Amino acid sequence: MSLVVVGSLAYDAVETPHGKVDRMLGGACTYISLAASYFTPVSIVGVVGDDFAEEDERFLASRRIDLEGMERAPGKTFFWSGVYSQDMNDRTTLATDLNVFASFSPKLPAGYKSKPYLFLGNIQPELQRSVRGQMNGVRLVGGDTMNYWIRDHRAELLKTIGEWDFLLINDGEARMLSGEYNLKRAARAILEMGPKTVIIKRGEYGALLFHGSNTFSAPGYLLDSLFDPTGAGDCFAGGFMGYLAGRNIDLSDPATDAKELSRAVIYGSVMGSFCCEQFGVDRFRTLTRAEIDQRYQEFKSLTDF
Amino acid sequence: MSLVVVGSLAYDAVETPHGKVDRMLGGACTYISLAASYFTPVSIVGVVGDDFAEEDERFLASRRIDLEGMERAPGKTFFWSGVYSQDMNDRTTLATDLNVFASFSPKLPAGYKSKPYLFLGNIQPELQRSVRGQMNGVRLVGGDTMNYWIRDHRAELLKTIGEWDFLLINDGEARMLSGEYNLKRAARAILEMGPKTVIIKRGEYGALLFHGSNTFSAPGYLLDSLFDPTGAGDCFAGGFMGYLAGRNIDLSDPATDAKELSRAVIYGSVMGSFCCEQFGVDRFRTLTRAEIDQRYQEFKSLTDF
Repeated sequence: MSLVVVGSLAYDAVETPHGKVDRMLGGACTYISLAASYFTPVSIVGVVGDDFAEEDERFLASRRIDLEGMERAPGKTFFWSGVYSQDMNDRTTLATDLNVFASFSPKLPAGYKSKPYLFLGNIQPELQRSVRGQMNGVRLVGGDTMNYWIRDHRAELLKTIGEWDFLLINDGEARMLSGEYNLKRAARAILEMGPKTVIIKRGEYGALLFHGSNTFSAPGYLLDSLFDPTGAGDCFAGGFMGYLAGRNIDLSDPATDAKELSRAVIYGSVMGSFCCEQFGVDRFRTLTRAEIDQRYQEFKSLTDF
Repeated sequence: MSLVVVGSLAYDAVETPHGKVDRMLGGACTYISLAASYFTPVSIVGVVGDDFAEEDERFLASRRIDLEGMERAPGKTFFWSGVYSQDMNDRTTLATDLNVFASFSPKLPAGYKSKPYLFLGNIQPELQRSVRGQMNGVRLVGGDTMNYWIRDHRAELLKTIGEWDFLLINDGEARMLSGEYNLKRAARAILEMGPKTVIIKRGEYGALLFHGSNTFSAPGYLLDSLFDPTGAGDCFAGGFMGYLAGRNIDLSDPATDAKELSRAVIYGSVMGSFCCEQFGVDRFRTLTRAEIDQRYQEFKSLTDF
């Protein structure tokens, strides 16, 4: 069923030990919707500048992503630039030019408002909440956040995630939000803030899912070569949410198989792993659903005992 | 079937955020054999000083560990002292007094030489090799090493592990030994050095097993509270090797189920997780086989999707 994704559309400049790209399509909304598009129809909400290339728009449309909610504003598209360390576990931001994204105020096209699935990428918590408020009868809503909102906009963030079905967060952010170092305790504390499910991303070490009293641990995929990790966390989000939407999962229905959430985490991991194999979104220019399902099976054999 | 374990017997002084113990039973051989004793009969080879307490000897014997190969030498038992960081991911060594361990030259009692399973704890590679040479018709042999031997005794180490069925190593050591940062490539390089199986320990993130073209990823167990990680890696080794010996596994027999190695990794993870729940070896004073099997089932549900 149809999924609405809200977040940044951007151009990135990236340097990894494998090379350098001066300008490539990026942004959380881009990665999330590309990954999700393999599982379900996706409609995006975001803003681009007048420099946004027609070929990039065509690429998103070629993945059947609905661009009606993509606003064009005078000025430049959000631009981020960074350099990864030799082992790619750290990155240094060289530039963050918000440009048209600075005054982004997401407005949902009328046709989006009754869609059942909503993923709120990392933007100001008050904007995430305003989008949630524009939707009618959403079945499943969740999203992402970051250290800045946790530290400096805590009250607003807590009000926002209190209305979500799930929160996706990395390990450092989970510790910061909960004040607990131990991830099991951190997850428990976050579940008490409102979300019924929390997914903690641990980079190359995989991800943890906490849902009620259930815990699931997904391994990191062992890549032959990590080419460019930019967007991997967002592709995880896209695979996770795309799978749930594609399967029409309703977590409030007691008949729903709780294992579907675990499978969604594995599809998230699959999409994150593909993302790292080429620069930026390039892997999604050739990736097929058959390759995705084959890697899902690899996760099966990687964890079976 | 019977397992011989060679390594250090020691006293430790440990400080963690949970408290401080001035003198507790420790040493790799101690932890490995205690963990393995839940799965198979264990015979140890090691050296202690004249300060080795009778109650510690009684405790090992109470786990039906054969102490015939435990040599008593004049002087003091190996002593190690360390302090853990607040998050327990780092530890600082305050003292390493080798004492009687400095001149340890393992001699196997006659009755040990025909036992089928041998685990060589982290000691000088040439001593590990001499023990291997004293055994007749050993069915499965493997062991552990550390950064010091990799860096400063590389040639001797390569000769030693070239005769092993498996090598157990942590991620940092695997990278150092192979010269590869990527763990998949590191494992491949190590497999070319001789061992048919390599197990890479990743602390709280679990462990990876590489065997031929098979890869298995075991999650880290999510402890409610990490009390004292001292000995966890050795207990992993004990659970891993103990399970293989207890099941009478012969990896050279083509009929052997390769999944047994994965199950051994899970039992290793189970034993490592229990070890962290109390100071030193204390958890093994009350731990039962039923608790072990229950935690094994928890690993099943933690990874099932």
